[in-house]
Amino acid sequence: MEDLNYILGYENIKIYQNTDMFKFSLDSILLPNFVTINKTVKNILDIGTGNAIIPIILSLKTKAKITGIEIQKEVSTLAVKSVQYNNLEKQIKIINQDIKEYANLQPTESYDLITCNPPYFKINDKSAFNDSEYKVIARHEVKLTLEDILKISRKLLKNNGILSLVHRPERLVDIIEVMRKYNIEPKKIQLVYPNQNKEANILLIEGVKNGKPDLKILEPLYTHNDDGSYTDQIKKYFS
Amino acid sequence: MEDLNYILGYENIKIYQNTDMFKFSLDSILLPNFVTINKTVKNILDIGTGNAIIPIILSLKTKAKITGIEIQKEVSTLAVKSVQYNNLEKQIKIINQDIKEYANLQPTESYDLITCNPPYFKINDKSAFNDSEYKVIARHEVKLTLEDILKISRKLLKNNGILSLVHRPERLVDIIEVMRKYNIEPKKIQLVYPNQNKEANILLIEGVKNGKPDLKILEPLYTHNDDGSYTDQIKKYFS
Repeated sequence: MEDLNYILGYENIKIYQNTDMFKFSLDSILLPNFVTINKTVKNILDIGTGNAIIPIILSLKTKAKITGIEIQKEVSTLAVKSVQYNNLEKQIKIINQDIKEYANLQPTESYDLITCNPPYFKINDKSAFNDSEYKVIARHEVKLTLEDILKISRKLLKNNGILSLVHRPERLVDIIEVMRKYNIEPKKIQLVYPNQNKEANILLIEGVKNGKPDLKILEPLYTHNDDGSYTDQIKKYFS
Repeated sequence: MEDLNYILGYENIKIYQNTDMFKFSLDSILLPNFVTINKTVKNILDIGTGNAIIPIILSLKTKAKITGIEIQKEVSTLAVKSVQYNNLEKQIKIINQDIKEYANLQPTESYDLITCNPPYFKINDKSAFNDSEYKVIARHEVKLTLEDILKISRKLLKNNGILSLVHRPERLVDIIEVMRKYNIEPKKIQLVYPNQNKEANILLIEGVKNGKPDLKILEPLYTHNDDGSYTDQIKKYFS
């Protein structure tokens, strides 16, 4: 089933999604609002772009060219339709390719910023392998591991370029270890909590290629009020 | 000048401190409240115990034997007086020695839990070297580095023993890297913020020797209300 959805609060943006594949999640809205972006950023790459929600939200914040790579053909078709619907073809290019192939063919140091909402789970995790194939590829490290992302980012980022990820807090230790291994120094972290008494359930982390150690941990974000509604912190991201 | 202070809220505990050296800080009260401690814990080591505030607060939570090591003679004298004043000589032993010497002479795998409120700053940081010698040793990695602490912990902790640290958030990346290097897997983090809109300024982190990766990031702590008073979260720790 193919839907055309408004993104809560972004009245002028619509996104195609298919519930058999996956819907965009809160994660994909948090990331483009967390990203450090300034006028020197000219070229952005979004790895595993899904239905292009991250590039489309980023287009509200920057005039940079954005490339979204999506390995799954049917998903990338939705991304193209979403880009067309929002008249963003001049700014956003969608490519249906394996990012590893794409990175091999690209010149080094060609991007200022890379964003990624990657598969969260290791292959050996017991979690939901009864998902559809679309979901397995989007959620599990079958086609793309954390180490792949860092290897690709080290190649494609310019010196002092930024890698910005949304991930799960339980992977923070792995993420930091692999970032350091590939000389992408973690500089900014923000933790997202369901409410004031729960453990963090979303991690936002950004690193700078060849950056000096100087980590900041931003104020916490809470997603939900006690009555289940979104908090003002989150609503602010939608307007 | 030598003071005898009540610790806010712990009515039955008093601590000797000397304002020329340093006072106990909030950090030293947060750590013993963060530590994972259960009945299997029989032997605890507190590295750089200062005026013994961490062992003394821990004594309210456990019957385990606690050893506090302090390199500075005058500071360790205050620690001994604090322990005596609180009638804790049977549970808490204070040793005036360099922890590196102590660790060399100790048998391996002799502790269930190690706590440490270490020097926070790298030697090459420009920060306050006009402090007194006492403060320089307590705050800067001149006598004890992060790597020293991990090396010592790997030797002295039993299998599955716990290392619990209070530190600065900007050192999180270094801490995680060095913990992994010495097979002490980070398992629990809690971030402490001055208030709801500021960056984190205190990091609590705990690792398990030879533990499996499975990090939890606990709910955030806020120390102060807008009027400068302590929050209920913090007050709870004092009663």
